[in-house]
Amino acid sequence: MATINKNFSKLAAGYLFPEIARRTNKYLSENKDVQLMKLGIGNTTESLPLSLVNAMKVKLDELSNRETYSGYGDEQGDTSLRKALAKYYTRYGVKLDPTEFFISDGAKADAANIQELFGKDNIIAVQDPAYPVYVDSNVVGGRTPGFDAEKGCYNNFVYLSCNEDNNFIPEVPESKVDLIYLCSPNNPTGAVMNHEQLKKFVSYARKNKAIIIFDSAYCEYIKDEKLPRSIYEIEGSKECSIEINSFSKNAGFTGVRLGWTIVPKELIVEDSKEGQLNSMWNRRQCTFFNGASNIAQAGGLAALSGQGYEDCRALVKYYMGNAEIIKEGLESVGLTCYGGVNSPYIWAKAPNNMTSWDFFDFLLKVCHVVVTPGSGFGPSGESFIRVSSYGHRENVVKAIASIKENM
Amino acid sequence: MATINKNFSKLAAGYLFPEIARRTNKYLSENKDVQLMKLGIGNTTESLPLSLVNAMKVKLDELSNRETYSGYGDEQGDTSLRKALAKYYTRYGVKLDPTEFFISDGAKADAANIQELFGKDNIIAVQDPAYPVYVDSNVVGGRTPGFDAEKGCYNNFVYLSCNEDNNFIPEVPESKVDLIYLCSPNNPTGAVMNHEQLKKFVSYARKNKAIIIFDSAYCEYIKDEKLPRSIYEIEGSKECSIEINSFSKNAGFTGVRLGWTIVPKELIVEDSKEGQLNSMWNRRQCTFFNGASNIAQAGGLAALSGQGYEDCRALVKYYMGNAEIIKEGLESVGLTCYGGVNSPYIWAKAPNNMTSWDFFDFLLKVCHVVVTPGSGFGPSGESFIRVSSYGHRENVVKAIASIKENM
Repeated sequence: MATINKNFSKLAAGYLFPEIARRTNKYLSENKDVQLMKLGIGNTTESLPLSLVNAMKVKLDELSNRETYSGYGDEQGDTSLRKALAKYYTRYGVKLDPTEFFISDGAKADAANIQELFGKDNIIAVQDPAYPVYVDSNVVGGRTPGFDAEKGCYNNFVYLSCNEDNNFIPEVPESKVDLIYLCSPNNPTGAVMNHEQLKKFVSYARKNKAIIIFDSAYCEYIKDEKLPRSIYEIEGSKECSIEINSFSKNAGFTGVRLGWTIVPKELIVEDSKEGQLNSMWNRRQCTFFNGASNIAQAGGLAALSGQGYEDCRALVKYYMGNAEIIKEGLESVGLTCYGGVNSPYIWAKAPNNMTSWDFFDFLLKVCHVVVTPGSGFGPSGESFIRVSSYGHRENVVKAIASIKENM
Repeated sequence: MATINKNFSKLAAGYLFPEIARRTNKYLSENKDVQLMKLGIGNTTESLPLSLVNAMKVKLDELSNRETYSGYGDEQGDTSLRKALAKYYTRYGVKLDPTEFFISDGAKADAANIQELFGKDNIIAVQDPAYPVYVDSNVVGGRTPGFDAEKGCYNNFVYLSCNEDNNFIPEVPESKVDLIYLCSPNNPTGAVMNHEQLKKFVSYARKNKAIIIFDSAYCEYIKDEKLPRSIYEIEGSKECSIEINSFSKNAGFTGVRLGWTIVPKELIVEDSKEGQLNSMWNRRQCTFFNGASNIAQAGGLAALSGQGYEDCRALVKYYMGNAEIIKEGLESVGLTCYGGVNSPYIWAKAPNNMTSWDFFDFLLKVCHVVVTPGSGFGPSGESFIRVSSYGHRENVVKAIASIKENM
């Protein structure tokens, strides 16, 4: 008799975005004339730059000609794109070999799958609050006996609290952990770790032979040139860090799907030999994946240099313009706000000791604005909301005006 | 200290296609003037139909306009594509609900990931020979203590021998197994199971509460209208079967990446309630995947009806024309051949008791034709080669002429 993977049933039921959708739809069904303004999901809204669209159309023309058609590409991604990414990192003084890059269909899949490389008994640490995929993939991967509903935490996972006292930058774990998920610029808090703060984690990881999984999907939103865009800007990080990144948020590829993961050759565990984890991820991708779409890869290549890169920078600037409007607007009604300066997310504190969901409901019903309740990202997210700067400017302006008028 | 998932080290070292590449490159480096003709990998070679290319260009135009741009789609795939697939199955008299379809970036990923839904102690059965992904994903999934090099088999896996005596159609397992991987039309043997043969497996699965994972990626190659294209043509199969399919081989999407998996609502295990496995796969996809590329999905939608479907049929006919030439050619030099009638693969027996690799080397060095050694697909593949009909017609003709001349 077939039996199920029991780890799936350990997943805590209330998944964040479906619950937002449920409350929103319920409100809409009872208030049919209301036009809601959405600053919830981190979903891009502006059109793809023509430079990228044209590169993808050229690829389609090649595919429609039998002389230039190509079928399966390399599971690791096109060599040209891997080389271009290696070159892209030299902007930040980071030297990597193209064979250390693995092109994927997006950062989410890589962030979820990377845990498969490690033993079931590895202790994971996550920032609290955090992007739910780090936690959920490790639940399915069998690294927790279950959810502690009272604490709002999975047992055996180490939660690194990010709060007002530490400016939303976590301290290194007090106990020994094996895998540490870090996201900077952070989703949801918008906090960005500086060199000193990242160094502490790299030192911890080297000392404890732990591995950092560094999600830098929002690095293009960093304006402050002193802040690190890649963990590999930190000395010694290659021997203890995997970096995951994406074209979603800088090139508007949320629906086109393209990302990458870097597994340095220097990264080893259990005193194995050079290239061990690079080979393992290579084998994993060759068995469980068949390469990212060749059309998306053509677009990604265009996004990394010349006009394409300039156009992507303009997209980021547009969203950061929204972030400025949101932050100013929320602060003008007396809300305490974090993030939104080197990140597209504003992390705002609910007033009057309201919970995240209370404030969510207030903004929904009174201001007609949909945001994301911070508690959905982990227990330390309670009493905060995440406001996303992904939206048409005119809608963002309207949403903020509505908040100003009704609060 | 981080530790690795030890299951990775159980994977038998010699992966098929890298070894083919190694031998081929070695020969080429020693014989620089030789032009090799490739009938090895099942990789499409003909151009994408304009009907599909144009649909994808329309999507790109939509993405380049902020009024019609869209970001993240549903993890399960676009509703329009899921509906179109449900309609496509009615051609074969199969009724499925659109919510039973999950669009993916290709059949390979789904075939590898589906095992995650099941317990580690489930016994798997695979056809022997078989597409290596079924086996390798279950090795990584922890369902074998290791490889038995003498037998060429993983311990605890049940190998269903497909050989000349049973016309390459496996018997149902003699012992109790939990998950059964079936591929029809088969890669690599080209054999197609008929209704009676599939019925036996469905009966076995229902009796033993086992689950069939049915890979029908080549169903569009079936010419004989009496043969089943979907396992759901068999009564009772919805309560015991998952079906995986792809746009790769009929629409030329090997590089574009698009596939789907069907998890019927009726499919349950452990006497759970209706929709259980459908919900689990939904949760898996929502956590580990972020939807297939929206551009690819637009192409897939075009491939399912009207001009797009006609163009895809023409592509399949083209490759089947190659298959005919290959089969006739190989038979004319006295080789015993199977498959190639309702499938793009010809499964040819090596002459004079040669091993698969011996015959591979002979064809490489004497005929300058690259094929795939059957033994790479499992122990019962020994003494066979797989010849793929994916290639430009002129190259196929040349390759067969060379074989005729040199054998």
